[in-house]
Amino acid sequence: MKTIERPLVILNFKCYRESIGSNAVKLAKIAEKVAEDTGLTIIVAPISVDLKSVVSEVSIPVFAQHIDPVNMGSFTGHIPPEAVKEIGVTGTLINHSERRLLLADIDASVSRAKEVGLYSCVCTNNSSVSVAASGLEPTMVAVEPPELIGSGKSVSKTKPEVVTSTVESIRKVNDKVIILCGAGITTGDDVRAALKLGTAGVLLASALTKAADPAKVLRDLANGAK
Amino acid sequence: MKTIERPLVILNFKCYRESIGSNAVKLAKIAEKVAEDTGLTIIVAPISVDLKSVVSEVSIPVFAQHIDPVNMGSFTGHIPPEAVKEIGVTGTLINHSERRLLLADIDASVSRAKEVGLYSCVCTNNSSVSVAASGLEPTMVAVEPPELIGSGKSVSKTKPEVVTSTVESIRKVNDKVIILCGAGITTGDDVRAALKLGTAGVLLASALTKAADPAKVLRDLANGAK
Amino acid sequence: MKTIERPLVILNFKCYRESIGSNAVKLAKIAEKVAEDTGLTIIVAPISVDLKSVVSEVSIPVFAQHIDPVNMGSFTGHIPPEAVKEIGVTGTLINHSERRLLLADIDASVSRAKEVGLYSCVCTNNSSVSVAASGLEPTMVAVEPPELIGSGKSVSKTKPEVVTSTVESIRKVNDKVIILCGAGITTGDDVRAALKLGTAGVLLASALTKAADPAKVLRDLANGAK
Amino acid sequence: MKTIERPLVILNFKCYRESIGSNAVKLAKIAEKVAEDTGLTIIVAPISVDLKSVVSEVSIPVFAQHIDPVNMGSFTGHIPPEAVKEIGVTGTLINHSERRLLLADIDASVSRAKEVGLYSCVCTNNSSVSVAASGLEPTMVAVEPPELIGSGKSVSKTKPEVVTSTVESIRKVNDKVIILCGAGITTGDDVRAALKLGTAGVLLASALTKAADPAKVLRDLANGAK
Repeated sequence: MKTIERPLVILNFKCYRESIGSNAVKLAKIAEKVAEDTGLTIIVAPISVDLKSVVSEVSIPVFAQHIDPVNMGSFTGHIPPEAVKEIGVTGTLINHSERRLLLADIDASVSRAKEVGLYSCVCTNNSSVSVAASGLEPTMVAVEPPELIGSGKSVSKTKPEVVTSTVESIRKVNDKVIILCGAGITTGDDVRAALKLGTAGVLLASALTKAADPAKVLRDLANGAK
Repeated sequence: MKTIERPLVILNFKCYRESIGSNAVKLAKIAEKVAEDTGLTIIVAPISVDLKSVVSEVSIPVFAQHIDPVNMGSFTGHIPPEAVKEIGVTGTLINHSERRLLLADIDASVSRAKEVGLYSCVCTNNSSVSVAASGLEPTMVAVEPPELIGSGKSVSKTKPEVVTSTVESIRKVNDKVIILCGAGITTGDDVRAALKLGTAGVLLASALTKAADPAKVLRDLANGAK
Repeated sequence: MKTIERPLVILNFKCYRESIGSNAVKLAKIAEKVAEDTGLTIIVAPISVDLKSVVSEVSIPVFAQHIDPVNMGSFTGHIPPEAVKEIGVTGTLINHSERRLLLADIDASVSRAKEVGLYSCVCTNNSSVSVAASGLEPTMVAVEPPELIGSGKSVSKTKPEVVTSTVESIRKVNDKVIILCGAGITTGDDVRAALKLGTAGVLLASALTKAADPAKVLRDLANGAK
Repeated sequence: MKTIERPLVILNFKCYRESIGSNAVKLAKIAEKVAEDTGLTIIVAPISVDLKSVVSEVSIPVFAQHIDPVNMGSFTGHIPPEAVKEIGVTGTLINHSERRLLLADIDASVSRAKEVGLYSCVCTNNSSVSVAASGLEPTMVAVEPPELIGSGKSVSKTKPEVVTSTVESIRKVNDKVIILCGAGITTGDDVRAALKLGTAGVLLASALTKAADPAKVLRDLANGAK
């Protein structure tokens, strides 16, 4: 796998009307354009149903929102890591606060991601869980205080101490994992603050998907990342 | 929604190597051909990632293996019913033994399926759970004793009493729901037995996906359904 | 098992400070006294840790808040039905909205309760789930709209149509199961309304556990049940 | 909390017939006697229903098999940490392989245990999950390969490399957490091997609960711990 250039922004498309189906492709193309124009690494994460059409339409990295810690075989309603890898997906979110997993399954998901060649980004809710997640050696850990998700109040400006303590605590035990933060990230200023606190980037959703002008939002984020 | 003609066969593609990615499309086309040749209603159920490509390549009904009981919105790693409906999917399995759900979520999934215009097939493990499921008024209930799934020993011949008691118990309280059975279904004889016991069809997976000649298996099933 | 006299009131002690430990015994004794004085059937449901001490101190029926659908054996952190039966517990709540279960596990819990001689009360969130639950043939079904739980606004007065439709829908398919309602039940008037709507009693928690004078609350409830 | 003397043995009573109800008290007394005679630290972990009677009959430490990561309040079918602390319980298992938890809930359980003054022992299935668990700073981490649980083949003799790699990996990032191992531990030799591999003790269940002479088994274990 080629390395992921930092700083980086992961756009979680979630299940919003504005970012599923044909809207997912449209939004991914806007992200691709801004990525090309600004040099910022932008990763998009559409729902499983849309992965293939998004991957086939853009050249920026595409992440799944979730994979299941299974091999190919007798599983119904699961997403085997091989299935997303084979269509050109680059990585996956794991354990998002809206899709919490058993610790043993997070471990197995990170392992399976590595096996098939997918980047893994384990989402966490606080500093101690972030340290735990980094013990599983995923590609990235993204700390997101649940109470700020979708709030419009950015973690990097509202709860900088959560980000700082996460970065410090992880770095005591793991110097490789890429650290991100998320929750309430809306503007370039939020990104700037996040990078200043020692992260390599941010994860965001509604600020983009609900924006009247997504390209403008992305350009502002890119500005903050300079 | 147009009515689903009976008898019917649902092919659960699960996560088998032989029925994901490009293999999913191939297998769906074989099923389509046999459906056209024999008049049997054949429904295919690929993984979420493959739904769109399968739907775009065949005209037989395509089911999801799972939907989440959510609306569009702030959900990560979920499958909103609208997303599968909008790409042309016809229905969905719910509560497969490999993807068991909370009772409240089965109810919400059946309701959401109705709202968006998807058929629902609730899978169950015995007669009493089948009666419970039929109380939620899904389109179909499919009883599948877990111990026979993937065993090659068909429920209709090995445990006919499970099928009979399920049909009788459901019919006391619900005369509309379509009743199917599954687990170990392999041959036309198994289908014939299932229909004789009062079901409208069968659900199967490995007997097809693991077959050297899937078309042959499907023709045999169609023969049994005559 | 001797029959449970109706009308009846189930007092769910939950995990409130006011109804765990020695408070659980105190509250159960108050309930016992009011039951003796008024003739109302009052059932108390303390946490698992307190079951034994409550059972040994009162003669009114004691329910568990939850049992696990397991046999005795290699299970850690579970509550085997035998264990609660053997200390003198009379029955159990199953699938409370704060402890939702898989449909297959509700079925197995109801079956295990029957096997060991425990009454079962399956909690549900609406009319269709109530019909489903009644298909499992528990002793009781208690419908509790989650949004009213702990609200102080009683289901029987605020959403009587939920109770009515639940009673009607269940009675079409099951004439034996005891039907209760809960959520927001606070006063004798709420009980009176619940019985008038066709239920055999109510389930309540905070209105009792948070009361300055629990005996007074219970006497009022008993008045409503006359 | 007074420190727990090492080496130590945790006896998980699980839900075995031989170790619930009055048998739990009997077995705990045998453990107490051997602990007094040999000086070995023996901890017993009965089901929640039996905690109070065991605590009141023995003076050795008693652990819960599970606590829920909740405060006192509106929770049904849960075990609030305060409730077990207040009856004299000393600590708790968390995330046993038969009771796997969400990562966020393990973190919250460890935090709640600390808040109320309970020791915590997080069970894990392999080396990387053990490192993750140690990041949450529980009192103990106990690695137990699930495939060996109840097998009679001890992890310390059959898979010593799992124990060694767990000890080494944890010690790189955490020098305080007490490390245990479990699964298949049966004899004093198994304990000796476990201690030699760098653990502070073992966790076992069936080898004791299913023994014809539990005292003899415990004396043998104590011998191995010398």
